[in-house]
Parts: sequence; structure tokens; C-alpha cells
Amino acid sequence: MERYDIAVIGTGPGGLEAAITAKVRNKSVLLLGSRESSEKVAKAHTVQNYLGLKDISGADMSKAFVDHALSMGLEITEDRVNAVYSMGKYFAIQGHNDNYEASSVILAVGMTAMKPLPGEMEFLGRAVSYCATCDAALYKGRTAIVVAYSSEDEAEAAFLAERADKVYYLPQYDFSGSFKDNIEVMEGKEPVSIEVSDGKATLNTKDGSIAADGIFILREQIAPSQLVPGLKLDGNHVEVDRSMATNIKGLFACGDITGTPYQYIKAAGEGNVAALSAVSYLQNADK
Amino acid sequence: MERYDIAVIGTGPGGLEAAITAKVRNKSVLLLGSRESSEKVAKAHTVQNYLGLKDISGADMSKAFVDHALSMGLEITEDRVNAVYSMGKYFAIQGHNDNYEASSVILAVGMTAMKPLPGEMEFLGRAVSYCATCDAALYKGRTAIVVAYSSEDEAEAAFLAERADKVYYLPQYDFSGSFKDNIEVMEGKEPVSIEVSDGKATLNTKDGSIAADGIFILREQIAPSQLVPGLKLDGNHVEVDRSMATNIKGLFACGDITGTPYQYIKAAGEGNVAALSAVSYLQNADK
Repeated sequence: MERYDIAVIGTGPGGLEAAITAKVRNKSVLLLGSRESSEKVAKAHTVQNYLGLKDISGADMSKAFVDHALSMGLEITEDRVNAVYSMGKYFAIQGHNDNYEASSVILAVGMTAMKPLPGEMEFLGRAVSYCATCDAALYKGRTAIVVAYSSEDEAEAAFLAERADKVYYLPQYDFSGSFKDNIEVMEGKEPVSIEVSDGKATLNTKDGSIAADGIFILREQIAPSQLVPGLKLDGNHVEVDRSMATNIKGLFACGDITGTPYQYIKAAGEGNVAALSAVSYLQNADK
Repeated sequence: MERYDIAVIGTGPGGLEAAITAKVRNKSVLLLGSRESSEKVAKAHTVQNYLGLKDISGADMSKAFVDHALSMGLEITEDRVNAVYSMGKYFAIQGHNDNYEASSVILAVGMTAMKPLPGEMEFLGRAVSYCATCDAALYKGRTAIVVAYSSEDEAEAAFLAERADKVYYLPQYDFSGSFKDNIEVMEGKEPVSIEVSDGKATLNTKDGSIAADGIFILREQIAPSQLVPGLKLDGNHVEVDRSMATNIKGLFACGDITGTPYQYIKAAGEGNVAALSAVSYLQNADK
């Protein structure tokens, strides 16, 4: 497996700036995220205070950011990251589509209002999982519930249904797809809590409950403490110092995930610092 | 005297971004510095890693930055700041041309390789001064040496010579100005050290020495500890936390002066954070 110098997770302003700076420093860069950059940036009406881009629409800004990265020869690998494990001298990155290795990692996954369901954290790793493709093999002859937040999750549910006997698919978006017979699409079911007893998982929704052997929650984003085991937080944010280093050696963070203010230029500035800190880390690690 | 909400000292990327963000938040802003933004930015050949402005020349970037600030209705007051004093509820700012007041201050004066001369710090405030217009009154009937680094200093030397009997003017740049008779221009004299004894100051140069009652060193930039009495440093840099707060209440810093990496986007990101921190500070101070 190719081992990249630096894996950048996230393609908002922090991640793109980090990738560009790492590239300028001649590092091999794995840039994981959406080719559309940050949805939040693209949806912003007008941004007034990103120095140098006066009075720009969020969509134009987002395009300028991605164009800049692509013009540097960077590629964006569209995969969602499920977990990052520090292996001492390198990091193992588990995506939904593939696994990756990198000598250092920059977390730039942003923040979304993302309250776990009651019971979610308690049963995570047992009856609750965030990655259907990762755990599909465990569901042979069993049943699963998939709570999905985007149409991209449909492929994952379809893959799971090749193993599982039955999949209940609860889209939390406007669903217009189609599935094989063993996937039952249940629209308009808003999840409220999770219970597990006697090896059976129950998802309670606003108007009832559904039982299965396990529950998959396919959020766009995973809480940082779940994404990187052992990562030290400060409230909801990743704790970093002024060099953007986290408590895990070789792991850096930038952008909204490190704390307020949630501002594009702040995220980009931190991406720059995180990348240069990763470059120094690699230099020292080489010695 | 008008008391501004926020005084931003410096017009490099950190200062301009701070001023823009403060303006967006409806604060009254005093922006002090050069209308040409940062000389360092303007002289950069090509900047590759300022996200959103791909492959831009330093001159074009500098122009984009200043244009952005002016388009927001900001004005740049061209004055050099000699000292910033915390008065408890506000700051008194002593410029070479005028004095100012502001409820909070953002220091964004950058870093230059700026080694004080041997003897300079020792005698600062006595036989050594950084501001000829400030101290001219003390030189009635006396003699002074002016070490000058830019043609802008000529007006200051001329003002000093209206009081002083005699001024020795040592330009450290290509001099093409003209003075009254009591100013002696001594070109090609590189200062190496300062000595003071029996109330007489001596400036030693590479090829000799000059004696006078006092010595003015008109650097573009003053060491931060001299600029703001009581400011806590970390090595050569101003110590800041992640909110860009210094040890002095209401005083924030951003850009190169807060430490490496010396990068434009890092400075701009910090300017944004410093401005928002100043805005919160003002909000809390109002209570």
C-alpha cells in the first residue's frame, strides 16, 4: 500500500489550504473529501471578510478554492473516513471505499451540529456502527437498520443488503432511488433513540420503533473522538496548540473542528500552519 | 479626541483582515500603517499557497488586499506608531504625526530582522529615542544624530532641526532630499554601536564615530516590548493564546509578530480571530 507523507481529511478551506501548502513543500498528499469543497462554504450567500476575495459568493469562493488545489496538481479522493488509527510510525485510515496509510494526518473535517442519539455512543462498536461497508460481513443472515443522510449512502446500503437478509433504510433526505427487494425504504422516520437488549437493537422513531440485529448511522460526519480513538478534546473541539498539533504525535487539526470562530480565513490560516507543522514532524521523524 | 472601538496597527495581511472583520462587525476602526500594505508582500515574486488566489504575484496580492479594505470603506492613516499605552479602559497611541485613542488595539506590525545596536536598549529613553517629533522639544540648543531608514524620515529630521542647533542625518537608504543648513547629511555611515558617557552620546560607525547630545533611530519598526510597555514576549515574538489575546487586557496581536510560520494566510487567519476577540472584549467591557 502506498504510504503518503500527509493525509488531509476534509476539503473545506482548512483542508484545501493544508494540502496546497504540503504540496508546495513537495510532500506526497492524500486529500480525502468531497470534490465540492465544503457544503457550508458553497451555500454562503456573500462572504465579505476573506481578505483578497472581496464580496464573493460562497459558490464562487468554493470554486476558487477547489480550482486552486487542482491547479497545483492535487487530486481529491472522494471517500468518507470512518476511523484513523495511530500505528506509531504511521496512521491507518479506514474509509468507506478503501483503506489508506500516511505518515502524518491533518484533520479538517469541520463541525456540524451533530448530537448523537441517546444510546448511540453507549452501543457504538457493538449494535451501532457508522460504516456499513466496513461491517457488512458481520451481517450475513441478519437484519440491519440504516439511517442515511445523503443519497451517497444508497450504494452502501445496497452493499450491506448483499450480505444481510433484510435492511430497513430510513432516508433523512428526499429519497428518489431504488433498491433490491430486501431493502425496505421507510421514509419520514425521524430517529430519536437507540435501545439494545438481549442482542436485539431497537431504533425508536418519532412515530414508532423498528427492531433489527444492528443499526448503521451514516452521518456525513463522525464525532472527532470516534474518528480518532484517543484524541484529546476540549469540549466539542479537538484540543490543539498554536502549531495545530493534537495530543497524538503526527496528527494535526485545523479549521472549525479546532474551535470558534467558524470563519473561512481562520480555517485556511490554520490549514497552512498545520501543514508546515506536519512537514517539520516528518523531517524530525526521518532523523 | 475621538475614541475608536478598535485600533489596528499595521497594514500587512493580518492587520487588513483584522480591520475588515472589525468593520463587518460594525466597529469604528482606526487603521494605522502604510497604504502600500506590507513591503514584504509586495516584493514577493509569486505566492502559491494563499488559498483562493492561485499563483499570484506579491504586488497583485498586496493590491488585492488593500483594494478589499478600501472597498469596505476603511481608511488607512499613514502614521508610524511609537508607543501604545494601556490606560485601563482604553489605549493611548502615540504616533509620529498624531496621538490617538482606542478601546482595544490589535498589533499587526510584522517582524523584521531587527537587531538593536549594542548600547541601544541600554540607553533607550535617555540618550536614545525612536521618535524625533515626540522628543524634539528637548533638543533646543542641542545637537542630535538621526539614523534614518527611509525618505519618510526626512520630514521628522527637518522638524527636529527647527529646535536643535545641529542635526547629523545618517541615511541608510539612497538619499536624494535636501535640508536646511543645520542638518548635515552623512551618507554611507553604517552604525555599529552606541556609547554614552558624561551626558554625551557617541554613535560608532564602521569608519569612525560621531558625538551629539542624543541619537534618534528611526526604524520602520520598533521591537514589540518597546512599542507596548509591559507586553509579554515569548522569545522575539508576542505571546498570544489561541484567541490572539496578549497578556494586556484589550490588546490582541496577529501575524508574524506572534510567531512562525511567517505566511500570509496564517497572518490573515489570525487577523480575523484577533478582530473577533476584540469585538467580544468590547461587548464584555460594555457590561
